[in-house]
Amino acid sequence: MALIEDRIRELGWSLGEPPDQRGKLAPAVRTGNLVYTSGNTCRLTGKVGGDVTAEQAYEGAREAILRCLAAVKWRIGDLDRVTRVVKLLGLVNCAAGFYNTPAVINGATDALLEIFGPERGWHARSAIGVYQLPGNAAVEIEMIVEVAD
Amino acid sequence: MALIEDRIRELGWSLGEPPDQRGKLAPAVRTGNLVYTSGNTCRLTGKVGGDVTAEQAYEGAREAILRCLAAVKWRIGDLDRVTRVVKLLGLVNCAAGFYNTPAVINGATDALLEIFGPERGWHARSAIGVYQLPGNAAVEIEMIVEVAD
Amino acid sequence: MALIEDRIRELGWSLGEPPDQRGKLAPAVRTGNLVYTSGNTCRLTGKVGGDVTAEQAYEGAREAILRCLAAVKWRIGDLDRVTRVVKLLGLVNCAAGFYNTPAVINGATDALLEIFGPERGWHARSAIGVYQLPGNAAVEIEMIVEVAD
Repeated sequence: MALIEDRIRELGWSLGEPPDQRGKLAPAVRTGNLVYTSGNTCRLTGKVGGDVTAEQAYEGAREAILRCLAAVKWRIGDLDRVTRVVKLLGLVNCAAGFYNTPAVINGATDALLEIFGPERGWHARSAIGVYQLPGNAAVEIEMIVEVAD
Repeated sequence: MALIEDRIRELGWSLGEPPDQRGKLAPAVRTGNLVYTSGNTCRLTGKVGGDVTAEQAYEGAREAILRCLAAVKWRIGDLDRVTRVVKLLGLVNCAAGFYNTPAVINGATDALLEIFGPERGWHARSAIGVYQLPGNAAVEIEMIVEVAD
Repeated sequence: MALIEDRIRELGWSLGEPPDQRGKLAPAVRTGNLVYTSGNTCRLTGKVGGDVTAEQAYEGAREAILRCLAAVKWRIGDLDRVTRVVKLLGLVNCAAGFYNTPAVINGATDALLEIFGPERGWHARSAIGVYQLPGNAAVEIEMIVEVAD
């Protein structure tokens, strides 16, 4: 049925390319009913609050979470099997003096609530300002979801 | 019975206000026998090792962990159902040159050992120095606990 | 049999000293089939990309992950019972302008793939650049592994 993927398309978004399955990192690992993704960055680079605005980084957070979902799909085959988004760790590449990290990671949270609805999409989260991210990415996010047996 | 809440009162502490249940973030999410809290900050703001001392931030870490416990209570109803504190991620908003992050997050660890005792309260932890926290908070902590069926 | 420990020796590495079991932190906590370690640092101190090179920090990441494995062994008795490395959070103490954090944490990832092989060792990971680490360590890593019943 792929209802969740239909919903993503309706919202005008895309899961993008499937993740690299041949790298030294697993895009996602399942253990029991939990799937842990690796951290996924957005293509946008630079320091939020410096060369990158919070609004641009908000879009970056959506891109990063869609990549997380692509990793989950790669692992479990069908996003309709996600029963709950459990937890996000949102990482913002901050300029000195910028600390509105929740406004940035809301780009991911809002997307998950739109995609999965409040019952399955409402998640726990931390949104922290880090000093550096891989490749100077503006945003990186890792996710834990619960999946059906 | 609420033995754990009695113990918190005996120690002279308080869970404070119940968490915001109407925000876009879940205060805590349960999956199986685990409860993941969102990151909780203290009210104290500023850079530890700069405008904030490690001693002040130690108190802030206790406040943050009590907020985590309030989130767990909101989710499971009764803190007596916590069978084990599993893991903390402690985040310290560090000034340049300050790296005694364990001394700060010990404010949370010591509180958990007092509240739950060594058998249930002894937990795994990382205590890291981050560049920015939401609202310039001095400390933020997220927690995973195991709960009874 | 201790096949995993034999493999570590074959590779010329060592689990080092058993972790401190009397501290306020648990070296590792088991819940269900998951074991969460505390964050483990390397002995090397300083900022990667500044006083410490990425190559030195790569070795530090291996040292940190071997300490994580020592913590897992302490908890479950025998590393042969690890069925899967699930997730690493790799933390790099970055100098300004250094953001090749994956190259550093690959020291841990490469070691895990060597020790456990691709089937059990292939894991999810984030590799982030933080502002400070305990004791000014160059690298800190925390790990989640899945273990047999």
